[in-house]
Amino acid sequence: MSVIRRLPRYYRYLTELMQSNITRISSKDLSLKMGLTASQIRQDLNCFGGFGQQGYGYIVDQLRDEIAQILGLNNSKKAIVLGAGNLGQAVAAYLEFETKGFHLVGIFDNNPDIIGTTVFDDVKVLDVAGLVDFCQREKPEMAVLCTPKEPAGLLVEQVYDSGIRFFWNFSHFNISRKYPDVTVEAVHLNDSLMTLSYLMSDHDTAES
Amino acid sequence: MSVIRRLPRYYRYLTELMQSNITRISSKDLSLKMGLTASQIRQDLNCFGGFGQQGYGYIVDQLRDEIAQILGLNNSKKAIVLGAGNLGQAVAAYLEFETKGFHLVGIFDNNPDIIGTTVFDDVKVLDVAGLVDFCQREKPEMAVLCTPKEPAGLLVEQVYDSGIRFFWNFSHFNISRKYPDVTVEAVHLNDSLMTLSYLMSDHDTAES
Repeated sequence: MSVIRRLPRYYRYLTELMQSNITRISSKDLSLKMGLTASQIRQDLNCFGGFGQQGYGYIVDQLRDEIAQILGLNNSKKAIVLGAGNLGQAVAAYLEFETKGFHLVGIFDNNPDIIGTTVFDDVKVLDVAGLVDFCQREKPEMAVLCTPKEPAGLLVEQVYDSGIRFFWNFSHFNISRKYPDVTVEAVHLNDSLMTLSYLMSDHDTAES
Repeated sequence: MSVIRRLPRYYRYLTELMQSNITRISSKDLSLKMGLTASQIRQDLNCFGGFGQQGYGYIVDQLRDEIAQILGLNNSKKAIVLGAGNLGQAVAAYLEFETKGFHLVGIFDNNPDIIGTTVFDDVKVLDVAGLVDFCQREKPEMAVLCTPKEPAGLLVEQVYDSGIRFFWNFSHFNISRKYPDVTVEAVHLNDSLMTLSYLMSDHDTAES
């Protein structure tokens, strides 16, 4: 799994190399660029069939294509966003414009002031009352949770019952505790920010 | 450090208990609620002076106050946001309305179409050309990086030279590689989403 978590970084660096018109790179040069050891890189990439050739290095676009394939980036999966506040709208735009592997099919909220407003292009915020019907019709595979903890439980129940088993979770609701058979990637913004706040503070208290 | 990373969760659960008018909790009940063991909880909280009493448990508001103190949440630190796209605007609102320990003093962009627009209330997007002057005048302590990698390097240099040493980094620019004396909390949205994409994909390739 730790190899998997490094693959997006490989993909990113290889994309940058391509943009700089570099077609071939040794594991040593790639390691310098990425701050890993060359043997770590060889070991990581060997896990996936080993595309490098001794003394020749890696062909950048070929390695990038292979990694994209492994990460499923060529297969655009339907995603919905639950919660259309600032964060939900940012995530929706992010899914649509800045990433591969997913595309947005719907964004939902329960706030009458937000429902029907335009997020971008021709994407409008949908009424969460229609969520179940929407899921049965469109069959999204992944839901992004951008709501407060309170409505999150009910929303997860609805989309789970509609067949969604993959979640990108920005909320404080613990999805996998209630549904052990789902796959969740959680982003703990608040924990990250509070950790930074801690690191910026005096810690006489902690040491007393 | 792993204790520190759990403190925000304690803070969150204790806040929920307060909101439910629960004034006292045993380490056992807290452990059930949080999915940790009771001995883990006692050990964690002992690190910070041990507020619990044998057979009596923890006084919720007192423990919450102590944790807030340790996390520096009572000390509102000045933060700026660099990049006022969807993500930057979401983070700005998040800092201002949904967290403690920080307040927003400025949000910057270089796009003439965005500069001068209102993010919320009376907060307008400022021209990044005035960033250095602004920092010298307002002395923010923390910068959130919400730009593409390209301008991030220059912006970090500018705010570093203005004295900022703490960063919340949503960009792909590696701040601490260039500035080893800064403290960075990084949020890797793209890595998280690509990992989810991987987990949703068939992996015949990986096993071949």
